[in-house]
Amino acid sequence: MSALPPLPAPAPSDLPTPASGRFVAGTHYYPLRIFFEDTDTGGVVYHANYLRYMERARSDMLRLVGIDQRGALDGGEGVYAVARAAIDYRRPARLDDDLMVVSRVANVSGATVTIAQDILRGDDLITSGEVIVAFLSPQGRPKRQPKPWVALFTRIAQGEDLNP
Amino acid sequence: MSALPPLPAPAPSDLPTPASGRFVAGTHYYPLRIFFEDTDTGGVVYHANYLRYMERARSDMLRLVGIDQRGALDGGEGVYAVARAAIDYRRPARLDDDLMVVSRVANVSGATVTIAQDILRGDDLITSGEVIVAFLSPQGRPKRQPKPWVALFTRIAQGEDLNP
Amino acid sequence: MSALPPLPAPAPSDLPTPASGRFVAGTHYYPLRIFFEDTDTGGVVYHANYLRYMERARSDMLRLVGIDQRGALDGGEGVYAVARAAIDYRRPARLDDDLMVVSRVANVSGATVTIAQDILRGDDLITSGEVIVAFLSPQGRPKRQPKPWVALFTRIAQGEDLNP
Amino acid sequence: MSALPPLPAPAPSDLPTPASGRFVAGTHYYPLRIFFEDTDTGGVVYHANYLRYMERARSDMLRLVGIDQRGALDGGEGVYAVARAAIDYRRPARLDDDLMVVSRVANVSGATVTIAQDILRGDDLITSGEVIVAFLSPQGRPKRQPKPWVALFTRIAQGEDLNP
Repeated sequence: MSALPPLPAPAPSDLPTPASGRFVAGTHYYPLRIFFEDTDTGGVVYHANYLRYMERARSDMLRLVGIDQRGALDGGEGVYAVARAAIDYRRPARLDDDLMVVSRVANVSGATVTIAQDILRGDDLITSGEVIVAFLSPQGRPKRQPKPWVALFTRIAQGEDLNP
Repeated sequence: MSALPPLPAPAPSDLPTPASGRFVAGTHYYPLRIFFEDTDTGGVVYHANYLRYMERARSDMLRLVGIDQRGALDGGEGVYAVARAAIDYRRPARLDDDLMVVSRVANVSGATVTIAQDILRGDDLITSGEVIVAFLSPQGRPKRQPKPWVALFTRIAQGEDLNP
Repeated sequence: MSALPPLPAPAPSDLPTPASGRFVAGTHYYPLRIFFEDTDTGGVVYHANYLRYMERARSDMLRLVGIDQRGALDGGEGVYAVARAAIDYRRPARLDDDLMVVSRVANVSGATVTIAQDILRGDDLITSGEVIVAFLSPQGRPKRQPKPWVALFTRIAQGEDLNP
Repeated sequence: MSALPPLPAPAPSDLPTPASGRFVAGTHYYPLRIFFEDTDTGGVVYHANYLRYMERARSDMLRLVGIDQRGALDGGEGVYAVARAAIDYRRPARLDDDLMVVSRVANVSGATVTIAQDILRGDDLITSGEVIVAFLSPQGRPKRQPKPWVALFTRIAQGEDLNP
């Protein structure tokens, strides 16, 4: 299709990188921007999408502490699945908004982790929610989380900032 | 792109129609099938998508009783928005599954409607949830629902089957 | 959450069923309705979603002729993947629109199938597109399609209406 | 739901920011990471989602050069809509992949802009596509783009790096 000249090859150090979250003061922060795909004809972000942003933040948290979800999936170890989610919608978000998903580990058990997740735009609270995730075998049965992961979640819950 | 011969023009009566829900015994039933777009690399339906199915069912319920959401939006009257959602995930659904969203109006107030919504695959409970929707002005402020709509929701809550 | 009385158990024959497509005059028709999830803040259907509707229609076509995509995936046989897609956007679709995906098999080779897919609202053409799908091994390499499936696609391309 | 102590208030300078693209050597680069929501049960990114990534990159490009899409929408000026999209799928992307959308303005006319967009994972080409966007009035009719915007796209097409 394209008849453009070949792409130049910029130095990798010149290139931007995907958003990455960070632990600050015992809390995980994950930033994102709202695009057309996120909105609906009501002019605001479609309500189900906030669950996606919360999942992005949890995946980022796991990545930061060294938990390899794709490796666990490919290796047949298991996968985290949402067992319960609840979300209060306080204010609408709109196209081009910059949002921050703010996550804290509220509880850790052998098979589940409970995470409180607020989404903010600056100081304004957009949504406030809580998610319980359970570790499942490849066959979809609940199983105990790997012990090192329980230890990591416990350290997060205790307020450690486990940035790489 | 296509060099196919012109489309034939089948009689409209030969053509299939979109899924439509129905009230049966005071309960609203809305059927859907799971496609690739609904699933994730864990092999199951992505958890946020169940909120979409619940919204499809609510929109279908409104359509059945004659509430025109697009008209209300275009006419500047207002729009329903989700104020709170909670969902328990009991069993995973998978590609090609036929699901049924089962909805009942649990409570009606001047500005909100509470709807209990389960999703089943045959007799198996996949998710169980509850959603509170609030009516909002085009500026996003809570406002009272149109009175005839409150009356309709009240009749549904009382178990009337308001099929067209 | 819900304190509603137990669900009644309607006769299955009273319950609605998911939308199903149909072959008419050598062409496959698949109907769908537009919900909030499909639209964006511009007031119209988000452009990427039309590719989803085209995939729903292709999956329905395969189901009608007895090709079991989930079985092929679970059995390690392989999966169809899109190799090329092109789409012209003619008119916007909006909330509550009833659309019809109209699909015709334009070409069949050992490893690929080319499908012309238009989307209409009544007589109005919304999008016009063409998709080439390729059969892939579970490792993601192109492989020949199962011979019975090539035969089925060839019969569709020749204008047979392979309704179950 | 959450009984956690109140959130600390980190200095804004400690907080991460959403991904932002950049012009390098006449080309726009936009980075993103693949989450569960992006994948399907085939274990790869669902094909329609690449159109979303391409749109994110175009929106980012507009933001970088100072074109305010939300302002144009809210002010009743108009909105860009996709008039044609074509995409070749070369390699699958998977969960946790870091991708780069590489965009170049190929052509600018009074009412449309043609953009060539490749998506890469490191040096590997994942998809290669081309999109034509048209400027539309709020009523959905083609209209000429604002002249300053045509001038901006022309400068991008000529290889200027219009970073803020």
